Order: sequence, then C-alpha cells, then structure tokens
Amino acid sequence: MAKKFIIAIDLGGTNLKCALLDAQLKIKAKSSFNTKSFDDKYKLIQGLADSVDNFIISQGLERSVILGVGIGVPGPVDTFRGIVHFLPNVPGWKEVQLKKILLRKTKLPVFVDNDAKLMALAEHKLGAAKKFKNALCLTLGTGVGGGLIINNSLYRGADNAAGEIGHFPLDEKGPLCGCGARGCLETYIGNNRILKIARKIFGSQITLEKISLLALQFNPKAIEFWNQVGKKLGLALSGVVNLLNLDAIVLGGGIACAGNVLFNSIRQAIQSRAMPDQAKRVKIIKAVLGVDAGLIGAGYLVKERLERGTPDLL
Amino acid sequence: MAKKFIIAIDLGGTNLKCALLDAQLKIKAKSSFNTKSFDDKYKLIQGLADSVDNFIISQGLERSVILGVGIGVPGPVDTFRGIVHFLPNVPGWKEVQLKKILLRKTKLPVFVDNDAKLMALAEHKLGAAKKFKNALCLTLGTGVGGGLIINNSLYRGADNAAGEIGHFPLDEKGPLCGCGARGCLETYIGNNRILKIARKIFGSQITLEKISLLALQFNPKAIEFWNQVGKKLGLALSGVVNLLNLDAIVLGGGIACAGNVLFNSIRQAIQSRAMPDQAKRVKIIKAVLGVDAGLIGAGYLVKERLERGTPDLL
Repeated sequence: MAKKFIIAIDLGGTNLKCALLDAQLKIKAKSSFNTKSFDDKYKLIQGLADSVDNFIISQGLERSVILGVGIGVPGPVDTFRGIVHFLPNVPGWKEVQLKKILLRKTKLPVFVDNDAKLMALAEHKLGAAKKFKNALCLTLGTGVGGGLIINNSLYRGADNAAGEIGHFPLDEKGPLCGCGARGCLETYIGNNRILKIARKIFGSQITLEKISLLALQFNPKAIEFWNQVGKKLGLALSGVVNLLNLDAIVLGGGIACAGNVLFNSIRQAIQSRAMPDQAKRVKIIKAVLGVDAGLIGAGYLVKERLERGTPDLL
Repeated sequence: MAKKFIIAIDLGGTNLKCALLDAQLKIKAKSSFNTKSFDDKYKLIQGLADSVDNFIISQGLERSVILGVGIGVPGPVDTFRGIVHFLPNVPGWKEVQLKKILLRKTKLPVFVDNDAKLMALAEHKLGAAKKFKNALCLTLGTGVGGGLIINNSLYRGADNAAGEIGHFPLDEKGPLCGCGARGCLETYIGNNRILKIARKIFGSQITLEKISLLALQFNPKAIEFWNQVGKKLGLALSGVVNLLNLDAIVLGGGIACAGNVLFNSIRQAIQSRAMPDQAKRVKIIKAVLGVDAGLIGAGYLVKERLERGTPDLL
C-alpha cells in the first residue's frame, strides 16, 4: 500500500503556512506566504488550492495518497460544516464556506477549525500536554487564544466557541477591550498592550524579545515587567483552575519565551490565590511544538475526522 | 423479582436528610435530623447507619432489595475511595473514611460525593439541566457551590475538585474571602455578605426572603439590591461562558428564589459582556428539584456506580 500523506494549512493574519505531513504527522515539506500578498479572500482560497497542487506535483505524489487537507484559521469556525464565521485580523472573511469551496477545487476531503483549538490538539497529542487528561493550552500573542482538553478530548462547547480565556473578566472597570467589554485578560497581557507599557519603561525601540533577554540577564526592570504580566495571567488562571481542577496549563506564543521569570510569577499567583487542591495539582508548562503546532494540529484534525467517519466528509 | 430501593443521605451543616428512593429515584420516605444534635462524627456516622436500618425496618424491606447508600457531603471528597477530606461547616471531619466505616456498619454498597456535584447530577438527569449537554449548576447559599456537566457527564477534574465557581476572582483588591484570596465571587454574593449589606439598607430585622418579596412588589431598593447581586454573578458567569461556551446555567439555593429581577440582571450582565456566540447560546434557568436535589443526586450516584461496576464497590 502506498504511503499516505496529509496537507496542513495554518492561515494566520500575517503568515500563511502550508505543510505536507506523513500519516504520523511528521512534517515532510513546508511552504510559507505573506497572507497580505493575496488581494482578496477568493485569491487567498485559490492560493490554498494551488499550494495543495504544488505539494502533490513537487513531491511526485498521486492525489489518491493525500488523506485530506486540514486548515486552521484565526477566528470562530463552524468546524463540522467548515464555515469560517469571521476573521478579526484578515479583512473580508464573513461566513465563508471554506470547506465547500476548497473541496470543489482540490477534490480532497477538507476540514477546518479554529487555530487555537488545533494548537491545543497538537500539544495534547504530540507535545507538552501529552500526559495530561485535562489541560488548557494558551497562545499568547496579540490576542490570547485558548483550547481546552477535557477528559483527553478537545472540548468545543455548544458552538465550537469554548476556550476564550482572553476575555476572562479581571476588572469590570478595567481598560476597554476589542470585544466591547472592560478589563478582559487580553487588555492586560495582549502583545500590543504590554508593548505600549514596555515603551514607556524601556524607550520606543524596545521589543518583547529584548525584554525577555534583559530578564535573562537579571535586569530588575525587565524582571518586574514580566512579573506584572505573570501576575495578571496567574490571577485569571487561578479562576480557571478553581473551576476546572486542571492537570496542566500549557503556554505558547511569543510571550511564553520570556522563560522562568514569567512562569514563576504565574505559578506564584496561582499558588497564592487558587484553592489548595487545585493549585497543588496544576502544572504550568511551556508549549513544545512552537510555530509548527498549528500545522500538526491541522494534520491531526484530518486523521481524527476520517477515522471517526463523521458525516461532514462528503 | 422484588422491587429495588436506594437510600440517599444529604449531610448538610444544619440538616441531615435521609430518604428511601425507588429505582426510578422517586422519594418514597423521608427523615430529617439536626446535624448539630450529634455530639461528634462517630455518633453522626452511627446516626447514618441507624437511619438506613430504620428505613429497612419501618418499610418492611429485606436488606437485599437495597441497591446501596449514596451520601452527599458539603466539602471536598475522594469520591472513588469514599474519603471525606474535610467539611468546612461540620467540625471534626478530616480525612474520614466514610465509605469504609458505613459499609462495615450497613453491609451495603456505599458511595460518597460532594453535595454540589450531586445537585448538578440530579438537575442534569431529572431537572432543569436535562436537555443540556454542557451546563453549570450553581447553589447559592452561604457558599457558592457548583457542579459542571460537560458532554452530558458530571465533570470532576483531576481531584474531584472542579466546579468551585465561588472562588472566581472578580477583583484582586476586593474583600478577603474565607479561602484566603481577595475578591472571590463568594465575597460579593454569599448569603452572609449580602445579608450584611441588606441590614444597612433595610434594617437589622430584614431577611433575604423578605427582600425577594419586596422585589416582587416592585420596591425600588429591593430591585436595586438584587440587581447588584445579579451584576456581580453575571460578571463571573460571563467569564465562565466565554471559557466553556455552555448551553445552560442552572441556579438553585436560597438566593435563586429572588426570581426574575435577579435572573434578568444576570442575563443582562452576560449579554453585555460575554462574547456574542457564547452569550446568545447560554440559557440562565432556575433549578427545579429544590431541597430534594441532593437526595436525588445521591440516589443517581448509587445507580451510576453500580451500573458501571466500578472497582470501588468492594
């Protein structure tokens, strides 16, 4: 029997990444584009279809050895019908029948899901959350996305909208959030927000990566900076562990690279204010799959849906 | 074949309730004691065993028709080993092997769980949460207890400690909570706390039941009082629905009797600050099993464990 492959796509606001995976979800080939280089959503979707064809041609594969195409997108999705509700950071996407269109173009099974959920799936199946039955996987970036693993499965909630830890209310009188509410976690630890604070402390040329480096070199201001971020994140997470009694919280995304200073401050916040059993149980650990997590998760999605033989395939 | 029965016990800080249930969880007979009338935990446990015997004798039953004994307790429990870790409101209970002791005394299978979890189980199996796949069931009293239904099952978390919505952090600089943290939901809406506020507004003779009646009669101060309670609860629940994308939240316990004024204010808080999909989905409804929820849940626990044939039986 011929070896089987999966094509995975991670559609981000900035980068569009594509990969050819084998059936064990190992990445065999990769390509990357600037998302903004496509004029509109139709050209972007055509770009996705072309990427699929390019992998097939360049690797000399028969179309029949491709099990399917998995796509992660940065926004809310009807995963079983493959409809993208909207993408906050990619203009023009509203109720797009991505699965239907791409299935027609590629003649392959197509599966679509939210990117934070796919990262959680990847970290749970092959990464940092592998040993844990109940875990929250966070991606810390411009937004704060999350995916919940409950009883060893990705938990989707009623509308595939579970995991929105970024909009955990920390202070009803806090800063206004993009979602319209006040004092959401994201308004305290989203990249843009903390960069603004950082510039006041370290000057206009500072980057978050530089502050991470400074903290590693024991710069007191940099340590205090990450302490404050960790304290806010730990406050929200203490509410989450009290509610869910999780085994682990996995942190990925740019900010997670700040290292021990950040992680210790998160742990301390949880120890000091979560309930004893919950605080003692939960491990706070770093994601291990890095920038490939979304691609691996998209690959896993294809495998899982095909194995389950869900009716959304045809 | 002889008809089968279950004995259910709801051990509260104030009242100890016992019931004989048939296999369909209908209550056939009931008895009630003052928890404080037992001098110590040994006398209390002997009282539980005596209650079991009394049902058997008074109803003229063979011991063999009793499927088992289910017990709900107000504190953290190792449900599979039947060990009560501690009971905040019943002195002297620490790491009590309740299952083991009572099994020896009654010669019947015994199952123990936390009372808020049993109420959630009951409301999900036979009550207000029956139609819902993912739901949070809250009991609003001195404490704010919760039980989570996830994918149609009671979700326990890693240590059977999930559901502690009472310690959701609303303000890191808020009032000191019994758990040691600041600004937990319980410090804003726990019975004792709101009664203290109520006395300042309505005088020292006021009760929460009276304020509920006043609100029904359109007393503006009473309406404003419940509005404030609903606003705080709604704030915490908006964080929960963003995270869990629940189908329903079921509210029981004394405060839930305040009626529409409270429920509408909770709904409004969720609509105004949860994310659109999550806010649109979640139903905020009143518990229907009332004071019997704990007994029915304890009965269900016995049925479920026996059907699953879990190893903790022997």
